Amino acid sequence: MCGHSIKFNFYICTEECKIKNGGVFFLGKFQHKVQIIPLGGLGEIGKNMTVFRYGDDMILIDAGLMFPEDDMLGIDLVIPDITYLVENKDKIKGIFLTHGHEDHIGALPYVMKQIDCPVYGTALTLGILQGRLKENGVGNETLHVVKPGDKINTGAFKLDFIRVNHSIPDAVAIAITTPIGVIIHTGDFKIDHTPVDGQVMEFNKFAEYGDRGVLCLLADSTNAERPGFTPSEKMVGQTFDEEFRYAKHRIIVATFSSNVHRIQQVIDTAVKYDRKVAVIGRSMVNVVNIAKELGYLKVPEGVLIDIDETHNYTPEKVVIITTGSQGEPMSALTRMAMNDHKKVDIMPGDTVIISATPIPGNEKLVSRTIDHLYKLGADVIYEKSNGVHVSGHASQEEIKMMHNLVRPRFFMPVHGEYRHLVKHANLAKSLGMPADHIVIGENGSVIELTKSSITINGKVPAGKVLVDGLGVGDVGNIVLRDRRQLSQDGIMIVVVTVDKESCHVVSGPDIVSRGFVYVREAEDLMDEARDKVQAALDRCEENNVSEWSAIKSTVRDSLGRFLFERTRRRPMILPIIMEI
Amino acid sequence: MCGHSIKFNFYICTEECKIKNGGVFFLGKFQHKVQIIPLGGLGEIGKNMTVFRYGDDMILIDAGLMFPEDDMLGIDLVIPDITYLVENKDKIKGIFLTHGHEDHIGALPYVMKQIDCPVYGTALTLGILQGRLKENGVGNETLHVVKPGDKINTGAFKLDFIRVNHSIPDAVAIAITTPIGVIIHTGDFKIDHTPVDGQVMEFNKFAEYGDRGVLCLLADSTNAERPGFTPSEKMVGQTFDEEFRYAKHRIIVATFSSNVHRIQQVIDTAVKYDRKVAVIGRSMVNVVNIAKELGYLKVPEGVLIDIDETHNYTPEKVVIITTGSQGEPMSALTRMAMNDHKKVDIMPGDTVIISATPIPGNEKLVSRTIDHLYKLGADVIYEKSNGVHVSGHASQEEIKMMHNLVRPRFFMPVHGEYRHLVKHANLAKSLGMPADHIVIGENGSVIELTKSSITINGKVPAGKVLVDGLGVGDVGNIVLRDRRQLSQDGIMIVVVTVDKESCHVVSGPDIVSRGFVYVREAEDLMDEARDKVQAALDRCEENNVSEWSAIKSTVRDSLGRFLFERTRRRPMILPIIMEI
Repeated sequence: MCGHSIKFNFYICTEECKIKNGGVFFLGKFQHKVQIIPLGGLGEIGKNMTVFRYGDDMILIDAGLMFPEDDMLGIDLVIPDITYLVENKDKIKGIFLTHGHEDHIGALPYVMKQIDCPVYGTALTLGILQGRLKENGVGNETLHVVKPGDKINTGAFKLDFIRVNHSIPDAVAIAITTPIGVIIHTGDFKIDHTPVDGQVMEFNKFAEYGDRGVLCLLADSTNAERPGFTPSEKMVGQTFDEEFRYAKHRIIVATFSSNVHRIQQVIDTAVKYDRKVAVIGRSMVNVVNIAKELGYLKVPEGVLIDIDETHNYTPEKVVIITTGSQGEPMSALTRMAMNDHKKVDIMPGDTVIISATPIPGNEKLVSRTIDHLYKLGADVIYEKSNGVHVSGHASQEEIKMMHNLVRPRFFMPVHGEYRHLVKHANLAKSLGMPADHIVIGENGSVIELTKSSITINGKVPAGKVLVDGLGVGDVGNIVLRDRRQLSQDGIMIVVVTVDKESCHVVSGPDIVSRGFVYVREAEDLMDEARDKVQAALDRCEENNVSEWSAIKSTVRDSLGRFLFERTRRRPMILPIIMEI
Repeated sequence: MCGHSIKFNFYICTEECKIKNGGVFFLGKFQHKVQIIPLGGLGEIGKNMTVFRYGDDMILIDAGLMFPEDDMLGIDLVIPDITYLVENKDKIKGIFLTHGHEDHIGALPYVMKQIDCPVYGTALTLGILQGRLKENGVGNETLHVVKPGDKINTGAFKLDFIRVNHSIPDAVAIAITTPIGVIIHTGDFKIDHTPVDGQVMEFNKFAEYGDRGVLCLLADSTNAERPGFTPSEKMVGQTFDEEFRYAKHRIIVATFSSNVHRIQQVIDTAVKYDRKVAVIGRSMVNVVNIAKELGYLKVPEGVLIDIDETHNYTPEKVVIITTGSQGEPMSALTRMAMNDHKKVDIMPGDTVIISATPIPGNEKLVSRTIDHLYKLGADVIYEKSNGVHVSGHASQEEIKMMHNLVRPRFFMPVHGEYRHLVKHANLAKSLGMPADHIVIGENGSVIELTKSSITINGKVPAGKVLVDGLGVGDVGNIVLRDRRQLSQDGIMIVVVTVDKESCHVVSGPDIVSRGFVYVREAEDLMDEARDKVQAALDRCEENNVSEWSAIKSTVRDSLGRFLFERTRRRPMILPIIMEI
């Protein structure tokens, strides 16, 4: 007889033993399945967050944020809806982080205010996280540093951290041994055979799990559209070398602050060509300090100088590392390009290397920055030049390699827009996986995994929570709809003061508009608009309409029609009635 | 003695003859120079428009529009500032069009309302233009059809039209013979050795002009960043062939309506694989009709069917050509993707080919469309697949070919953002042109060309005129600034009614907000806000502040500070005081 208790590892409980012992009934039905519940990262790039549940034990992998879409006017950032987590907060045994990018850790300051559980991550991941927590007034008492090879047992789960390559050091995949089998979540990864820090992805561990049998793989789909292999980070170093060798003036390199390997390569090349390095941009300075402190960034004594000291050196002896590779309006590089930086003026002859690819949506901002830099006389090396940036995500051939190392029974693509998930699923099929062994989930899908099946069974609340200033979730669809209307055609406010007793208008109608037309040049239009409102009010009086809401609606309709006829615009019309 | 009069063609007036006859003085200084004045298209993609002036004779090449930048909220389109043209309207001898794209003809409905002169273009160009003019209530009496090889003499200028390849049929470059030499304006072009209509670019004519001597070249810079050659349009036809051959269901092809060659290839491939073709999307239907009528599109009898007839055929017998390749929200393909099209429902198994590249800024819209199509079960062939689209603009090797055919003395890159112009200038230098023979102008620059020099000398008014609904130019910086503020944090309106005599508040303060927070969930905040305003009003009364502007400003400051502290947002605050 199979003596497995609920807490026992069922991994070795064979089908045969289940049948012998009454199987499902004996063990309790829910015990033979794991629920995988993505709360973010499916059908979108960003806010990655996945729940794994076995009975009453839950763990979470990552808790990221997303940057707002264009139509989310005024929104600062977007985090996952964690209603489901809050409802089950006592069951959550821990949050496990794959790496320190915003789309994997950025929601934690908000999540940790509502959920109290240990948070595990590698040293650099937690180093970066600590800064975020501090800014948000959240304590760091529950953080636990792990390293590749460490194993954590919690509830029904045993977690094992496996080193992968990515565009930030200290990234890990996570193998979760559950009572019904092993699930591997790759996190973000690429295969880099020549990583800058020499720390190659632990192929052997993936292979070992593959040999022992993996029930399900969740893998990064970001680059599932891209054929071939993603080049090694070292390639960018070669580009730096070529540019540094011939540059006769200052060199300014903009990149992602979290790309410590890239920064290392800038520093190494600067040392080789005898240049000093200054670092600017708040997040760049922060990450460089953390990475130096933790030993991820190796800088020889005397190489780093303060930005104010750069004036003590001739331009051909200086490199500046900066933020702003996405053309972000307030970033250091953008300010330089707009001739608006306090400490750095672009000089003719400077070489600016934008070592990044524009994130979708940022193309125009980046182009504008490049144009302005050219106008100031700089030479700009950017995306269109080869070798100035490489992706941190696996292309199709690397994805296939991951599948063939792990050889999972079931597969669920994660991290990507819907088309990426479909392409990834197609890749898996091309490797021989049956279609019914693959699930393309949505945020909130409850994916039930047994030893012999993967199915979507139910839905939990999931979605986008908008953060605007200090408000978390207080901007919803109505507010956004209003902002959209206001942004298109502005607003026209109509105020009248009415005597409560007599219902007579005693003052007004006054009309004020903003964002509609430049009023000084449209006085006639405004006068006519006032006449229209007056006529509408007169009609109400004639017809004994005395309900404020009916009067407002008459004014809104009449004025709206007039303005559309005259201008083909539809400003928001806001009638206000003051009673005295 | 040189007997040239003012109207005489100075082309053969040698330096020697000038000196003999007192040169500059005798002939009048301005006669020996041509002014080139770009009013659009420099430092931007779009609204191409260039003035050529010799003495009192002016001609214009193209009059295009531009689509609004992201920060031009609510704006429909952007046209060049034509103050300079209006001031000189009597001097304008004609407007000459290179091809029928919006960025070359789209401003004409506005320009032609203010300037009365002949407009010359090829048949398809004017066919498309006529539609635009009709929509805008502008007559077509001044349109004159020309064809490659035609020559027009007007004032001091002789114009010759030279066939080029582009992503629309009937595109021409223009050679302008002026009294001081020949200027060639390429318009938009690419070199296609195997164009769909067999009409190869007239290399011989460029070469002939080159042999005789070209004073200045103005050439398309759009793809100056791109190494190598732009592939032939025929390549897309091969892709269509592969997709059509294996498609088992309906095929839907989205592309630019003006790309008649592309549409021809869809039709040809449909005929080959025995499918019927239906056309949807307003602009697609329009262009197909015009192109068919003018003979640019050749459709065998019985191939085109109405969209309502598609139901009479099995899916594998149907091709639909549609607009929406840029993910435009109201376009036919976007509606299909959102399951919101009146006549076409996407069915699982459909193949959707998006035969276009997203124009910068449209990437996210296109991605969203693709994702939705996948969700509906379609297979989508798009940008990331090879061969689904080719550019209509010359890449670096083609640009070099143009320079080496024309061998101009001077050069001015046109059509491109600033970085494109710089890259194009660098290409010209790499071919041996001295730096002082190249001018990178700006919109409004007055570029003076003599037989021996090219210089920027002065500036005329130039810029962006915003079109919003029926308003042309009535939305300026203040309105846009207001729309931006409204779009970010909404508006809060504070109304009080005050007795004129006593200065006492008799009603209010009332507070109304839109686009700020969802008021029902923020009642406390609104109550507190009202208290703040009341306190501010009380302070004004205590301190005997009675000027409305001072009271308003106190209210604005006090409420603004409070809201920022509480929400970190800065809604527009609009105090309104009603007097009774």
